Amino acid sequence: MNELIERFLHEDLGIGDVTTDSIVPYDSTSEAVIIAKADGIIAGQVFACDVFRFLDEHIEYIEIKKDGDHVKSGEKITMIKGKTRAILTGERLALNIMQRLSGIASTTRAFVNAVAGTKARILDTRKTTPGLRLFERYAVRIGGGYNHRTNLSEMALIKENHITTAGSIRNAVKKIKDSSNVPIEIEVKNMEELKKAIEEQVDRIMLDNWTIDEIAKGVEFVRGRIPLEASGNMTLERVRDVAKTGVDFISVGFITHSYKSLDLSLLLRE
Amino acid sequence: MNELIERFLHEDLGIGDVTTDSIVPYDSTSEAVIIAKADGIIAGQVFACDVFRFLDEHIEYIEIKKDGDHVKSGEKITMIKGKTRAILTGERLALNIMQRLSGIASTTRAFVNAVAGTKARILDTRKTTPGLRLFERYAVRIGGGYNHRTNLSEMALIKENHITTAGSIRNAVKKIKDSSNVPIEIEVKNMEELKKAIEEQVDRIMLDNWTIDEIAKGVEFVRGRIPLEASGNMTLERVRDVAKTGVDFISVGFITHSYKSLDLSLLLRE
Amino acid sequence: MNELIERFLHEDLGIGDVTTDSIVPYDSTSEAVIIAKADGIIAGQVFACDVFRFLDEHIEYIEIKKDGDHVKSGEKITMIKGKTRAILTGERLALNIMQRLSGIASTTRAFVNAVAGTKARILDTRKTTPGLRLFERYAVRIGGGYNHRTNLSEMALIKENHITTAGSIRNAVKKIKDSSNVPIEIEVKNMEELKKAIEEQVDRIMLDNWTIDEIAKGVEFVRGRIPLEASGNMTLERVRDVAKTGVDFISVGFITHSYKSLDLSLLLRE
Amino acid sequence: MNELIERFLHEDLGIGDVTTDSIVPYDSTSEAVIIAKADGIIAGQVFACDVFRFLDEHIEYIEIKKDGDHVKSGEKITMIKGKTRAILTGERLALNIMQRLSGIASTTRAFVNAVAGTKARILDTRKTTPGLRLFERYAVRIGGGYNHRTNLSEMALIKENHITTAGSIRNAVKKIKDSSNVPIEIEVKNMEELKKAIEEQVDRIMLDNWTIDEIAKGVEFVRGRIPLEASGNMTLERVRDVAKTGVDFISVGFITHSYKSLDLSLLLRE
Amino acid sequence: MNELIERFLHEDLGIGDVTTDSIVPYDSTSEAVIIAKADGIIAGQVFACDVFRFLDEHIEYIEIKKDGDHVKSGEKITMIKGKTRAILTGERLALNIMQRLSGIASTTRAFVNAVAGTKARILDTRKTTPGLRLFERYAVRIGGGYNHRTNLSEMALIKENHITTAGSIRNAVKKIKDSSNVPIEIEVKNMEELKKAIEEQVDRIMLDNWTIDEIAKGVEFVRGRIPLEASGNMTLERVRDVAKTGVDFISVGFITHSYKSLDLSLLLRE
Amino acid sequence: MNELIERFLHEDLGIGDVTTDSIVPYDSTSEAVIIAKADGIIAGQVFACDVFRFLDEHIEYIEIKKDGDHVKSGEKITMIKGKTRAILTGERLALNIMQRLSGIASTTRAFVNAVAGTKARILDTRKTTPGLRLFERYAVRIGGGYNHRTNLSEMALIKENHITTAGSIRNAVKKIKDSSNVPIEIEVKNMEELKKAIEEQVDRIMLDNWTIDEIAKGVEFVRGRIPLEASGNMTLERVRDVAKTGVDFISVGFITHSYKSLDLSLLLRE
Repeated sequence: MNELIERFLHEDLGIGDVTTDSIVPYDSTSEAVIIAKADGIIAGQVFACDVFRFLDEHIEYIEIKKDGDHVKSGEKITMIKGKTRAILTGERLALNIMQRLSGIASTTRAFVNAVAGTKARILDTRKTTPGLRLFERYAVRIGGGYNHRTNLSEMALIKENHITTAGSIRNAVKKIKDSSNVPIEIEVKNMEELKKAIEEQVDRIMLDNWTIDEIAKGVEFVRGRIPLEASGNMTLERVRDVAKTGVDFISVGFITHSYKSLDLSLLLRE
Repeated sequence: MNELIERFLHEDLGIGDVTTDSIVPYDSTSEAVIIAKADGIIAGQVFACDVFRFLDEHIEYIEIKKDGDHVKSGEKITMIKGKTRAILTGERLALNIMQRLSGIASTTRAFVNAVAGTKARILDTRKTTPGLRLFERYAVRIGGGYNHRTNLSEMALIKENHITTAGSIRNAVKKIKDSSNVPIEIEVKNMEELKKAIEEQVDRIMLDNWTIDEIAKGVEFVRGRIPLEASGNMTLERVRDVAKTGVDFISVGFITHSYKSLDLSLLLRE
Repeated sequence: MNELIERFLHEDLGIGDVTTDSIVPYDSTSEAVIIAKADGIIAGQVFACDVFRFLDEHIEYIEIKKDGDHVKSGEKITMIKGKTRAILTGERLALNIMQRLSGIASTTRAFVNAVAGTKARILDTRKTTPGLRLFERYAVRIGGGYNHRTNLSEMALIKENHITTAGSIRNAVKKIKDSSNVPIEIEVKNMEELKKAIEEQVDRIMLDNWTIDEIAKGVEFVRGRIPLEASGNMTLERVRDVAKTGVDFISVGFITHSYKSLDLSLLLRE
Repeated sequence: MNELIERFLHEDLGIGDVTTDSIVPYDSTSEAVIIAKADGIIAGQVFACDVFRFLDEHIEYIEIKKDGDHVKSGEKITMIKGKTRAILTGERLALNIMQRLSGIASTTRAFVNAVAGTKARILDTRKTTPGLRLFERYAVRIGGGYNHRTNLSEMALIKENHITTAGSIRNAVKKIKDSSNVPIEIEVKNMEELKKAIEEQVDRIMLDNWTIDEIAKGVEFVRGRIPLEASGNMTLERVRDVAKTGVDFISVGFITHSYKSLDLSLLLRE
Repeated sequence: MNELIERFLHEDLGIGDVTTDSIVPYDSTSEAVIIAKADGIIAGQVFACDVFRFLDEHIEYIEIKKDGDHVKSGEKITMIKGKTRAILTGERLALNIMQRLSGIASTTRAFVNAVAGTKARILDTRKTTPGLRLFERYAVRIGGGYNHRTNLSEMALIKENHITTAGSIRNAVKKIKDSSNVPIEIEVKNMEELKKAIEEQVDRIMLDNWTIDEIAKGVEFVRGRIPLEASGNMTLERVRDVAKTGVDFISVGFITHSYKSLDLSLLLRE
Repeated sequence: MNELIERFLHEDLGIGDVTTDSIVPYDSTSEAVIIAKADGIIAGQVFACDVFRFLDEHIEYIEIKKDGDHVKSGEKITMIKGKTRAILTGERLALNIMQRLSGIASTTRAFVNAVAGTKARILDTRKTTPGLRLFERYAVRIGGGYNHRTNLSEMALIKENHITTAGSIRNAVKKIKDSSNVPIEIEVKNMEELKKAIEEQVDRIMLDNWTIDEIAKGVEFVRGRIPLEASGNMTLERVRDVAKTGVDFISVGFITHSYKSLDLSLLLRE
């Protein structure tokens, strides 16, 4: 990940932290602590550590809370010992990363908890922040969610427009199978399409923007012959009812596009 | 920006959109429309356009709403005409960018509106998403806000730890002036520090985490001799009272770290 | 993919093709044909096209053979019409890519054919050329193979050393499940380990370097409760016997690390 | 090279080795050995070392065999001592690089040995793997070969199409000399062209796809006035006869486009 | 900055320093000294240090002269102790950077000295070396100059062509303010335009290619209502007279596009 | 080169030219002309063209002067027709590149002219601007000079420190030949070393910092057995006398580290 960490540091640093470099001696060392200022799930310790370690390779970065741990406001998350310059210069980027990933993990966990006791798995979507997909997928997993496809090239998802262009679900599936050996999912908008989709040998079917009643009927119709994914407008209020239909997967864009950062703070010790 | 757009497309595309490329003929063309599914301020039209233009250089991208325009849920934002493949493949990234930037612009606008009639300007912070700072700074400007420093190297911000290390505000300022010719801001935590900071020739003073009463006293004390920036825990509820103290700038981390994406949708026309 | 194509062109071009640029007028156009000089499976048409299109955006690139088609020595694969400079300058890189990917597809196809009639799927491995993994995975799919995990972060593969360090298969699985929600595969070296692995809830078990008899016994023991992958020293001579054991997957490093390029040639028409 | 090593690691690692990081403690150290599983020439020790050192800067990497040494199957090539995580995570990339480069060096050495006793030098071509040219040129030198031009911009190679476009060999040479000061080579397809090429002041002449008899006549005609390079369809069977004609250089695409990786294995010591 | 340092090292190193790596043992250490071979202002110590530290992380790099110090020919600038290989391999790049930046700082200092006693500040321009803008802006600050806008996106500079297109200065300013919240400067070519520009609420006005008399009249007319910048054909001979007009800023392209490198030399101690 | 052009544009543009984009309509077209404002040799037309073409792919860029042509102040160099935005936004970068390369070509030409009539060739050195080596090498060739080694990995240059470490010139040469097949040059500081160097089979010998008399004696001693390169402190005043000694190559750092940019200007036509 150092390549990305470097790019991010370059963005924030330009050619150096003029304030810190002018004032803090090169050899000065300090201790610092990262503290939670809100409740949530921690994610991204290793990337925050990478930031500091990039600036001071011998820095000590002791994780008091591990990725996936729940923290309460005021609790210590990390102890850091090393060059003062590295701590002050790296602080903002380290927190920028960890606050966002913890925000995603916390939001994901809320969804996962909401469906507890059902067999539904919470999935992310491709609605991730440009440039940060791998990080955000990781945070989703830490929150207890699962990942949808990595990108557009290694799994097919046949949507309405593809079906229209291909003429039928069958044709769409056939064209993909003729092209390349990728896993295939079909998005269906109603029971009629579901009935056609179920006749194809594919890996999953997505019920996109179905009501809870419709999903329930879909699940009943399919009876486990193929995994089903519910998608569209998933909120914390609604997700449990969706899960109770017996659907296998629920994909939630909200967890990567509209989470709130978890508030974290770094304090230098005197 | 093409360099970043390419990197983002590569992240989402891998080596190609297997679904679309298998099913949609190379020469097929379509019309599509981007529609708002919530109220807010649009930002990022040019970057969304860049995504589609990267995939089809002759695509028509007609902005019905310009960056900075307010839209209501259901309104059309953009008309697109061009290769179907480009539209389907670029859709997710274009929306991922525009939804986020519009979310930032909308949130910024809310803060700007909240301080309307005062002289306070809303500033962003360095709490931007790693890799997207230039984009997010742009969205803040579109929302009516102003930008704080670009990075750590071209402007100094003297914080508490720097003052402690330097021994005094005066020493800290002197060390920076000895090093390089950059604009300087000093962060002060109370009136005592403010009194010392005001004696230095610097460009701005930041009142960090002061109460509204304290800010008011600071403003009164300074009487316009140097621009003042209020910072820390700025919420929509609180920002107007802060602005009414007569402070020149108010910096708000919330607008880049905890905004909600503006919901947008792309529809292919039949 | 343009980002990679550019990097590759830069490597081959430096700052320009001094021979062609000095001699061939900017506006000169030509026709060319790509011809197979050996029998095999074509892969990489779209990437070869990208190379030429990068150098002349209006170039016509007509695929006579599609990715996945079998060609015989002497057959035409592609017709190209466009700027002579683009054709001459892009020739080497376009062929360098397509020859290698076609080599991989051809070799993969040979393995796929060898196991025809069994249920075994041919998988690639992480033994890909540094920097070209996505391309090579694509070529494997074109040849009829399937892809193993993309990288080390989104799927776990527990090997002998991991088991030793963790103390037991159970502990190793538990530690991964505690860390993050990724698919899990366990590599086992004998029946004893297989028996332990089968008790865990994981996604696949790899029989690494087992003899054909041992594999057969493993398959019989597992009886479809979990997918099995045979791995290690897979040659064309041996692979059919492996497949006949009833194993679900066979992973083959050879198809990406020791294939022979498919000989292709570009001829300019007079 | 760290920039490339990082990119390659990123490709293989994603954001981290979930298996190893979950199971192996951060401070655990191990010893490992790299062993040859086939006979050949070693190349790429320094790059394999770079991979491990990138992951553990204090790792000991002791080369038992140096680049250029001949190894036999079963011999130890390298001893490694350092963080277990670095060894397990870096293993695949380190071997992927060294196996390929050793494959190229071994194949090159076979060609060099085949022409031993003649004055012919074995040259590589531009038929290298996209993105790896500098590495592969290095492996060719380690195998005892020499490098042809680095790229298209710093040396001219006038081919048939260039001659046709320019109207004559003389015109083609003149146009290049008018453009820029680069070394020049002319590719000739028969004795008639050779006679014209010899009249120009250039640096080398390439006899492309000539029979051995024709090459011999070319060499006799030129009598050392200008260096000659034989090219096209060079195999181990044929190369010695080509060399015996007295030609100065023989360029061989095979050594970079169709070598077989040298089988290497990394074993962790218990 | 490591990302750029790496790219630069890669440019100079290829895949390794074959001379040094063949001859100098890995563990050999040396002392070296960097010496000025001309008089001037030093700039770039930290970047030179980065180069060596990249190659030997434990190298000692002791700055005898700090950035901004004046040195005389023959004076020692830096003491270096560390791996001989790192010193020999990094020497050229380290000097290439520091010689250029010191050249810029020295030239800037000459301009700054020339305007001493006036209130004029010396500014750089966008006439920087492609790829090195941040470094060169830094060197300008070290020389006592100030930076003009970072790039085209975060500050507007309305030039003659923009005014013509917009129809008037007023329209031009309005269009920018409608678009985004950036600082604005207007370039005016005569007193008439200046009179119009002064009526707008902008941040600065540039008097481009005005004679000294004209500048003086402009300054008198404006009387401090808005900061003025003189620009165009600034030479050391002319700059003092320009400064004496009372203008606030003087921008000088010469300091980044036509400076002479400061001659530096690295000597290995025996 | 588009990859570098993009990076440079990104540096200058940020996320867009706010002035031009706010004021100039997307479809507005203009004509412009690039004019020399000093006498010199033009270099870099193709790269300037690339900049504009990157911003407007259909732009017409008509070279009135070709690379290598001599221009006088006031002469037109290029006619440009295309999108006004592309012209205004690309102007600075296009000129930044062409001014520098023309400066290098002009300076090189002065050196080449100074040695006219001798057999000496002017060489560049590794004292190029970080990141721009390929461009600057090209400008040197356009000026009539020749290129020294590309980088440290594909040619060896044995310097004093290498000789000291190796124990003798012979040992140094042997160690390199044992390592890899690269061309070899030896730097010698006096006649004694020259006598030893001449006994080795290497490709060139560099007389570093020799006086003109010493060089003459060196040339006489060597009598053409091996090419000689004079190096160190080469000025226009001195270079002709150096050339008259009969030396084969003269390497000149000045042409890349201390040239003056050739003043160029872009004018929009009304």
